[in-house]
Amino acid sequence: MDAGLHGRDGLIVTGRPHLLQAQALIGQPGSRHRIPTPAAVLDLDAFEANVALMAERARQAGLALRPHAKSHKCAWVARQQIEAGAVGVCCAKLAEAEALAAAGVDGILVTSPIVGEAPAHRAAALAARLSDIRIVLDHPDAAAELGAAARGPIQVLIDVDVGLGRTGVRDPAQALEVAHAVGAQSNLRLIGLQGYGGHWQHMAGANARAAAVASGMDRLRAVQSALSQAGFGVDLLTGGGTGTFTADAAQGVLTEVQPGSYAFMDREYRDALGEDPEGAFQQSLAIAATVISANQPDWVTVDAGLKAFSTDGPLPAALTAKFAGCGYRFFGDEHGRLARPAAPVARGERVEFAPGHIDPTLDRYDVLHLVRGDVLVDIIPIEARGASQ
Amino acid sequence: MDAGLHGRDGLIVTGRPHLLQAQALIGQPGSRHRIPTPAAVLDLDAFEANVALMAERARQAGLALRPHAKSHKCAWVARQQIEAGAVGVCCAKLAEAEALAAAGVDGILVTSPIVGEAPAHRAAALAARLSDIRIVLDHPDAAAELGAAARGPIQVLIDVDVGLGRTGVRDPAQALEVAHAVGAQSNLRLIGLQGYGGHWQHMAGANARAAAVASGMDRLRAVQSALSQAGFGVDLLTGGGTGTFTADAAQGVLTEVQPGSYAFMDREYRDALGEDPEGAFQQSLAIAATVISANQPDWVTVDAGLKAFSTDGPLPAALTAKFAGCGYRFFGDEHGRLARPAAPVARGERVEFAPGHIDPTLDRYDVLHLVRGDVLVDIIPIEARGASQ
Repeated sequence: MDAGLHGRDGLIVTGRPHLLQAQALIGQPGSRHRIPTPAAVLDLDAFEANVALMAERARQAGLALRPHAKSHKCAWVARQQIEAGAVGVCCAKLAEAEALAAAGVDGILVTSPIVGEAPAHRAAALAARLSDIRIVLDHPDAAAELGAAARGPIQVLIDVDVGLGRTGVRDPAQALEVAHAVGAQSNLRLIGLQGYGGHWQHMAGANARAAAVASGMDRLRAVQSALSQAGFGVDLLTGGGTGTFTADAAQGVLTEVQPGSYAFMDREYRDALGEDPEGAFQQSLAIAATVISANQPDWVTVDAGLKAFSTDGPLPAALTAKFAGCGYRFFGDEHGRLARPAAPVARGERVEFAPGHIDPTLDRYDVLHLVRGDVLVDIIPIEARGASQ
Repeated sequence: MDAGLHGRDGLIVTGRPHLLQAQALIGQPGSRHRIPTPAAVLDLDAFEANVALMAERARQAGLALRPHAKSHKCAWVARQQIEAGAVGVCCAKLAEAEALAAAGVDGILVTSPIVGEAPAHRAAALAARLSDIRIVLDHPDAAAELGAAARGPIQVLIDVDVGLGRTGVRDPAQALEVAHAVGAQSNLRLIGLQGYGGHWQHMAGANARAAAVASGMDRLRAVQSALSQAGFGVDLLTGGGTGTFTADAAQGVLTEVQPGSYAFMDREYRDALGEDPEGAFQQSLAIAATVISANQPDWVTVDAGLKAFSTDGPLPAALTAKFAGCGYRFFGDEHGRLARPAAPVARGERVEFAPGHIDPTLDRYDVLHLVRGDVLVDIIPIEARGASQ
């Protein structure tokens, strides 16, 4: 094992002098525009407004709010959300939960099924460490694996396929099989159901999203009802995302919602949500880039390319006023091509971009640069970056 | 500054118990198939053959080989390439060079222009630390910046646009301006020219690539000739990639080549190169995934999605024989959808995939799992992962 793998369960990444340069900028006027790029930059005013708005909406709707950490992967963000009223966070994978737990986050729902003996042992170790951990299952064998590994009581939820077809039991009969398997494990306690419609989140139009949610919630309710009749009554129904919040609240089936992107926003959500209530969140997260070559007549080259943005969503869009409307194109692994604005552009100029899809974009960055206005105020590690295991 | 930012210039990533589980597997029979997933897995037999084949071809062609580290970001890989005969490595960005230098790599050409005072100071610090560093410039101001920051002699190359239009001087007149600016700095020494045609690398057909290279090399030679007439004679001409190796060797203009992907390969290169000589490299790098849900009749869900693969190239393709030809689709941030093969599939089964585009895929992983046959033999940190600054 190389010396780069460090300590009990940490990985040390050495040789990042640009982080020292960034650190030295903290508190300086105009420092937002001198952060080494490419960089993930979080505008605190916009972020705090987003966190407060979602917390208020959930309160008004009587829904427990459990924001999804797969969007941010960051213990500091989780703490802000919990302080604003969230009951805890969701993590997509066990490794994401482990990384956030190591950074002090408690109250975690792992939203993907855990498969196999080795992950079951990791889940059991995590459960022994936290006061509140919740694990989803979609197969009877998962109950046996987790039950065998458990060192004490573990709360579990049955994951229900509400139409996405990704994970989850498909019908009440499969749910009952899982419920019985959970019941056979003395250390497992069935506390609820999860039904997440990822494919609904970016549907354009509030009515389309509401109709999709309604059909999916029928499936979730059917499972709840069948379980209840068999003596497995559960009241906790969790699911939902940023795009379906209004529909989730109106349906009144879910008791807990799992939005993630609302804290940051991205172009994909902006395009889908438009003027709908769910579109009221601000673009708080930007990727900052620098013009590194300006020798061409029609475009300039920035230092942010395929390794700076995910490419699955819409193209990044320039937020910096001077470059508004200037088209961005990927220009290889490490560069982007940005159409020239009317005004002259010099090498060294800065451009901030709204990313196309926030989750797989932010998962590429080691740290989040917190800014207030034009000032860099702190640098926060993204502890669960890359933790998809 | 959070405790997560650690030490002089290192970042410590804590909470990765799956790495401990992987470490405990080293040397065990069949351990390749128990590595926590998603995981980057390097087949050493195929990798070593690729490294040896490119080294031999460069030797036969009389070309210096300087593999591009943007594909691997890994000091261990750089060392294997240098031990096989490479003269050093290329790094796309200064931060990539800093991360590899911190891990002991010397002999580095930074292939993107460095812009601004703060990066110039980092470049100067790196030059003071290494015995052989080379920096490209494409603007006179860059010479002034680097010259002002230099603590001692620094070798520089003029980057020449050979048709890609991304970075580089556009013509001999611009090159002369940069050469004069370099000449005005007592600490800078002009040693060569760089001309890289990234857009040629994935052209289908050896003849198409050869024609493109020929036209680009004419531009490079014109710059070399104009500089020579003005008293700036340089013999080192560097550029080229995995796809154009044969054409670069045949043209005889470049004296040094910069291929990167040959060590690992990916679907994008496989599709473009086919049976051409450049296609002789093996797929040595795989992304390993696990079936985490198998409740659907037509597909199964694996734990590798938008955060496990880059999405800019072709779709990932299953390498595991049982799943050969089964179509993969992205299924959200953390999951993929894989068509069922004829044989039954159980949750927990493993699938290895060839990634679509290796560079931005591997840049998502903390470590590389080295395997020999079915045995995990070591785990190597990817030191420059995410280092695009």
